[in-house]
Amino acid sequence: MSTKSIPAGASGAVPDRTESFDAVDVIRTKRDKGRLSAEQIDWVVDAYTRGVVAEEQMAALNMAILLNGMDRTEIGRWTAAMIASGERMNFSALSRPTADKHSTGGVGDKITLPLAPLVAVFGVAVPQLSGRGLGHTGGTLDKLESIPGWRAALTNEQMMNQLEHVGAVICQAGSGLAPADRKLYALRDVTATVEAIPLIASSIMSKKIAEGTGALVLDVKVGSGAFMKDLEQARALARPMVDLGTPAGVRTVALLTDMSTPLGLTAGNALEVRETLEVLSGGGPRDVVDLTVALAVEMLAAAGKPVPEDEVRRALSDGRAMDKWREMIAEQGGDARAPLPVAREKEHVVADRDGVLSHLDAFGVGVAAWRLGAGRARKEDPVQAGAGIEIHAKPGDVVTKGQHLLTLHTDTPERFDRAVEALDGAWGVADPGTVVETPPLILDRLA
Amino acid sequence: MSTKSIPAGASGAVPDRTESFDAVDVIRTKRDKGRLSAEQIDWVVDAYTRGVVAEEQMAALNMAILLNGMDRTEIGRWTAAMIASGERMNFSALSRPTADKHSTGGVGDKITLPLAPLVAVFGVAVPQLSGRGLGHTGGTLDKLESIPGWRAALTNEQMMNQLEHVGAVICQAGSGLAPADRKLYALRDVTATVEAIPLIASSIMSKKIAEGTGALVLDVKVGSGAFMKDLEQARALARPMVDLGTPAGVRTVALLTDMSTPLGLTAGNALEVRETLEVLSGGGPRDVVDLTVALAVEMLAAAGKPVPEDEVRRALSDGRAMDKWREMIAEQGGDARAPLPVAREKEHVVADRDGVLSHLDAFGVGVAAWRLGAGRARKEDPVQAGAGIEIHAKPGDVVTKGQHLLTLHTDTPERFDRAVEALDGAWGVADPGTVVETPPLILDRLA
Repeated sequence: MSTKSIPAGASGAVPDRTESFDAVDVIRTKRDKGRLSAEQIDWVVDAYTRGVVAEEQMAALNMAILLNGMDRTEIGRWTAAMIASGERMNFSALSRPTADKHSTGGVGDKITLPLAPLVAVFGVAVPQLSGRGLGHTGGTLDKLESIPGWRAALTNEQMMNQLEHVGAVICQAGSGLAPADRKLYALRDVTATVEAIPLIASSIMSKKIAEGTGALVLDVKVGSGAFMKDLEQARALARPMVDLGTPAGVRTVALLTDMSTPLGLTAGNALEVRETLEVLSGGGPRDVVDLTVALAVEMLAAAGKPVPEDEVRRALSDGRAMDKWREMIAEQGGDARAPLPVAREKEHVVADRDGVLSHLDAFGVGVAAWRLGAGRARKEDPVQAGAGIEIHAKPGDVVTKGQHLLTLHTDTPERFDRAVEALDGAWGVADPGTVVETPPLILDRLA
Repeated sequence: MSTKSIPAGASGAVPDRTESFDAVDVIRTKRDKGRLSAEQIDWVVDAYTRGVVAEEQMAALNMAILLNGMDRTEIGRWTAAMIASGERMNFSALSRPTADKHSTGGVGDKITLPLAPLVAVFGVAVPQLSGRGLGHTGGTLDKLESIPGWRAALTNEQMMNQLEHVGAVICQAGSGLAPADRKLYALRDVTATVEAIPLIASSIMSKKIAEGTGALVLDVKVGSGAFMKDLEQARALARPMVDLGTPAGVRTVALLTDMSTPLGLTAGNALEVRETLEVLSGGGPRDVVDLTVALAVEMLAAAGKPVPEDEVRRALSDGRAMDKWREMIAEQGGDARAPLPVAREKEHVVADRDGVLSHLDAFGVGVAAWRLGAGRARKEDPVQAGAGIEIHAKPGDVVTKGQHLLTLHTDTPERFDRAVEALDGAWGVADPGTVVETPPLILDRLA
């Protein structure tokens, strides 16, 4: 029985006459390293959204795409088909240009928070449709939800209104944009096909193009705490995304930035909001400030309103960005002056000898923060607002025996053990006087 | 959001403690060209059978196996896990040795029908657990069901009884043998993963080993009408199957046989039974007789009861095999002397000029017979007992203009057009005197 197969071409003998293609033929094309036609792509994405192509069929196709790739034309068409699966937004009624930023996700990456108000200060509107965290990288909405009263869900009308009057909005992406992507992403997550570069590129860009932003700056993270572990992989992802944006009317630039060690000195929801407030007060860790400024400069330029870097930096120290932040938070019900949640329990990781911190691995810190309760393993899980990690030393810093290197925060102390386990080998102390080489923050730029 | 992935290793952070593995990790191992461990294979096959590993997860794993392969150890373990998913039969209580045959499926391949009684004549019992056809290759049970009264479903006890007293049984495989295979095969069929050699080999061998036959002869078909289009592919499938059988206690031999043109002069259910009766009466097409005898010789030798070829051949002409056939059919309620069903409508394909038949493509004939109603596109479809194709000339035969080459049979004449379409290019007439080279029937033997 098992070998009684329907060979290539034959399965069309009694096709469903209401469908233009057969899912098995489409899968077979990619399985055999062929190029999917525009019509095949349009059909398979649409039929999957309608439930005519089954989950298991799309899973097989995704694996074939992951292993055999898609060329630039296929990726472009796949992206267009995902956009066509839902509604498109239109910001042309706004009195100012728009610019958005997308990060591929890292540990301690709270940049969206200070960045959106900072860009808005200069008359470019920032429509930041965000998501929640999954796995060891945090989600922007989870971070903002640690602010008492703040709500992520806005109607399109509320969003447009806030964009016009405040100039910045960070909210939950509506379910109308690229619904095919949402369905597909949930599938990729359980079938080990998240890592397919053509699918990552089309997933990100379909939503950004459907959202209707005029300019887009991609922050493609590189390193242990990121999705892309090396610069070559990161370029392979950034290139098709940049290439997809511009012909679709979204001026797109990508910065490739270091994620070998956490960004800033905090990882965790309320902890990262606290750091954001430091940055908006003219302080904060240098890497967070530098990256925020660099991305703001790129966004403003891409939106056609270039501003010199020192002028951008000044808006952080003179309170203009903080004022915009408060407006933005208040508009979504948040109390920007209320105390932030604090976890019930703390534990410290201390240096075991005198010396220099040789490394602090972003992935290890990310997994530890996640296990402390800052992140979720399943979409429906809650997160702890106060959970996470404070970092007291970064690679290259001199440390002394017994000094606190990290402070772990959680409401549920039974989680400490597994968090500490994740940190095993994630840091090290080298002999005093050792020179530790750290990579530059910005590794490359693609436009 | 789509890039917030759980990287390798991290998804174990909050695992389901009741399961030993995570499906995503298993898929990722094969996706990344790794070797699946024995424990991973045991778990994934079992968890899939229990419904814990979802269809879409198994689909992704199957595609990764198809594209990245499995080594001999992995195939052996996968086969063992499929066997362990169900019951095993035991023929050791029988007074005679057992031998089974499996064909990978071809057009006009009715060999099981004369073969089972022929081998039984010599005191070797043949437990032939068969299936129904799907696609362009016919199913043994569909053929036998064209005999009035014959029934495919037997209990294990009826089957054992018939094996002991008649010595041959062709019946439906019970649902207890390798249930994982049945579930997996239905999935492969809709996800373009039927063609994965490790999965084909383990599918066939898991059922044969679970069935408990002492010897097994594989008829691996090669050519346009077969699953394997060339000899190299066929060897790649035959080798792991032969290697799986012997260590599992099943003495296994494979013949690689030609399927570039249909076997014999009929394709279709009752038409093939009619041809079987000719063979059992000492006549019939030479290729059908030769292959039946060759396989019988192999089966008898593998079962430890070798019989010379001419003695085997004699049992076809002296009526011993026909007597055994009648016993076998009668035991399952069939009336071996009742007239066979005949299709209501006929149409002829005629030679367009004088010359020599240059080719008659097995795949084209198979698809045409299928479209006439001899086969099914979906498991639940009925088949027409009388539908099919009679062949009046084979490659190399001299033909004259206007001569009938093929007769198409169906109860539903609206099917003629699409059947004729499938025959387009499937045959040709070369200039008179052309020498047409035809491949030998038996191309190779692996033991």
